Amino acid sequence: MKVNFSKRSNYVKASEIRELLKLTELPEVISFAGGLPAPELFPVKEMAAVCQSVLTKSGQFALQYGTTEGYKPLRELTVEMMAKNGIEATFRDVLITSGSQQGLDLTGKVFLDEGDLVFCENPTYLAAINAFQAYMPRFVEIPMDEDGMIMEELERLLASGMRPKFIYTVPDFQNPSGRTMSLERRKRLVELADVYDIIIIEDNPYGELCFEGEKLPAVKHYDRDGRVVYLSTFSKTFSPGLRLGWVSAKEEILQKYILFKQGADLHTNLFSQMLLAEFVGSYDFQGHIQKIRDVYGKRRNLMLQTIREVFPEGIKVTNPQGGLFLWVELPDGMNSRDLLEKCLKNNVAFVPGGSFFANGGCENTMRLNYSNMQEERIVEGIRRIAAVLREEMTRLGETEAAAAR
Amino acid sequence: MKVNFSKRSNYVKASEIRELLKLTELPEVISFAGGLPAPELFPVKEMAAVCQSVLTKSGQFALQYGTTEGYKPLRELTVEMMAKNGIEATFRDVLITSGSQQGLDLTGKVFLDEGDLVFCENPTYLAAINAFQAYMPRFVEIPMDEDGMIMEELERLLASGMRPKFIYTVPDFQNPSGRTMSLERRKRLVELADVYDIIIIEDNPYGELCFEGEKLPAVKHYDRDGRVVYLSTFSKTFSPGLRLGWVSAKEEILQKYILFKQGADLHTNLFSQMLLAEFVGSYDFQGHIQKIRDVYGKRRNLMLQTIREVFPEGIKVTNPQGGLFLWVELPDGMNSRDLLEKCLKNNVAFVPGGSFFANGGCENTMRLNYSNMQEERIVEGIRRIAAVLREEMTRLGETEAAAAR
Repeated sequence: MKVNFSKRSNYVKASEIRELLKLTELPEVISFAGGLPAPELFPVKEMAAVCQSVLTKSGQFALQYGTTEGYKPLRELTVEMMAKNGIEATFRDVLITSGSQQGLDLTGKVFLDEGDLVFCENPTYLAAINAFQAYMPRFVEIPMDEDGMIMEELERLLASGMRPKFIYTVPDFQNPSGRTMSLERRKRLVELADVYDIIIIEDNPYGELCFEGEKLPAVKHYDRDGRVVYLSTFSKTFSPGLRLGWVSAKEEILQKYILFKQGADLHTNLFSQMLLAEFVGSYDFQGHIQKIRDVYGKRRNLMLQTIREVFPEGIKVTNPQGGLFLWVELPDGMNSRDLLEKCLKNNVAFVPGGSFFANGGCENTMRLNYSNMQEERIVEGIRRIAAVLREEMTRLGETEAAAAR
Repeated sequence: MKVNFSKRSNYVKASEIRELLKLTELPEVISFAGGLPAPELFPVKEMAAVCQSVLTKSGQFALQYGTTEGYKPLRELTVEMMAKNGIEATFRDVLITSGSQQGLDLTGKVFLDEGDLVFCENPTYLAAINAFQAYMPRFVEIPMDEDGMIMEELERLLASGMRPKFIYTVPDFQNPSGRTMSLERRKRLVELADVYDIIIIEDNPYGELCFEGEKLPAVKHYDRDGRVVYLSTFSKTFSPGLRLGWVSAKEEILQKYILFKQGADLHTNLFSQMLLAEFVGSYDFQGHIQKIRDVYGKRRNLMLQTIREVFPEGIKVTNPQGGLFLWVELPDGMNSRDLLEKCLKNNVAFVPGGSFFANGGCENTMRLNYSNMQEERIVEGIRRIAAVLREEMTRLGETEAAAAR
């Protein structure tokens, strides 16, 4: 039999990298590849207490169908969290999603027709590309520097007549680059979106994990027309296994998200929503987040310091003020996919950066995660990568020298 | 600002009925409207023990990101459950989904392009229509009788040259009609799909809830080519609030589901998957399901008996051998949406049947749920509906008599 799939099924392909990275699950591999939180910081004991409490107080309710919009106390918690980022909202402006990944998928459903333009950062979040790709848009990449998306580049494209369905941005401690959009650019982004009447999708999974410096207000803080759709998650502050995220947008837009959410999975796991709300009501959630910040901040410091000590000259590394990732640029001509294969032979892994470019290219980059690795293994892992790098750079140097002869 | 939504956003509309049914949440309303399991049967105490056990044994694992395919012990459980329905599979043939609603959404993503044909039963599951509608197909309804989808009608359409992307069926105790497809028709359905090379989507949320008679093998039991995609759920046998369902299909097809699942929500709530697997390992799951069967069977009996006693003549009711629903056909010319408004004034509710017809019509039908209502309220609720029905039928009779004069 010949299976007659949808057209979009032919767009979305299994990633070779994902197959390669399955090797990183072996215990002998030091993996900087995932984007996983540190499991030793999960509040496992507190969860046990919270489970008892929710089941005792309202077990039948917790195990029954819930509403599509989400559990009200959890929606109210997201409102408090957004308020700290300068966003005014009420619980009615919030839809609880099955992780913020579902927020991305619903964004594609709500806005994208085949061939529509999506503007995104260069590089951008890999799984956002995947989610949007199911709706067959064309991606236009806006270059970044250390202050995030470059507004002059965005303006140039808009002025040239290009009109995206939306601009997708991860302004805080971006995945994969670790970069943060500056205050001026946040304001400018909203101004440009106002002028050209464009929707902005602000994806903020990492904003709470700020190690140093002043926390900047959300892009949505500057939004007067309700053109910014705000996505966030509890995966990095509580538990990714529970799949709890949210979308906030003005009513006209949120209603569409709610309708599609209904068709997509009826509602988000109610028991888990209640566990989180109960945890926040019973324990010091801000203290818990501060613990995560402290640990990740130390790991970032150690990784950066080790890189500076042992990486060869000519390699650039970002200095993120929060989040989970460092971004490395290798000399031109180096290919981090090849490098990964060699690193895997030395039991160390990372994600080749090319996967984070919506239209491909930039194979001389790599993403390093520091949140999910014990300190001594960070030092050892970076040393292993450095050894492979030195070997590769020497080999490349010799090839070039030979070619020049 | 003018929000520029996707084309599909204009297809999917909020249901008026859903708004009306929000009234059914008032405690004084006896509602036969939902499709909710009986919450008093949820294993709340056992869940409390199971939570402790999972968190103690593997809390860090349970709260971390999981694999897209799902938790292996739970995938193995689905294999056992399918085996009882005559389906041969291994855990590799299974994807755990966020409820079987997500299985429906992914089905749309994997197979449907705009304008594609979907064949479905008449009536069919409302939320399947919603899920598929996001992919903008055209629905072709195949008439049913008491033995399910009528194969001569299906054959006639196929022979006329119509080629659907798939045939969607709920063969066991269908929602909304309560009807079960006969053994002969199951075989014939697969034969016809073989001849015309068509995919079958077999959605089986209620199959476990068989009160009487012999349980029939799944449609997929007769599948030799891997053209049947099988969807099921633990919402009716364990807990809907945990949103745990599954899809089983041959590798070529399942791979597409897995890729889209990745983009849709990365993976299903891992903690909940582990809770269910632990519950099944620690308690008598089959005994638990038998308890549900016993209670629902009694409620069905009582509802049917009361209907026979108090409903006026000229009203047809199905006699489901399992599942959650009765289906009522009122005399021609009656409109159950109007009836619902009157019933709500008398504090009783149901779902007007018109919503279950993919292309509309058949407003003289209604769906009654018996699983979620205590016995004494079943009797009282059916009496209230009967009173409104008698009034309406008298009024209609008088109008007709007046018109005939």
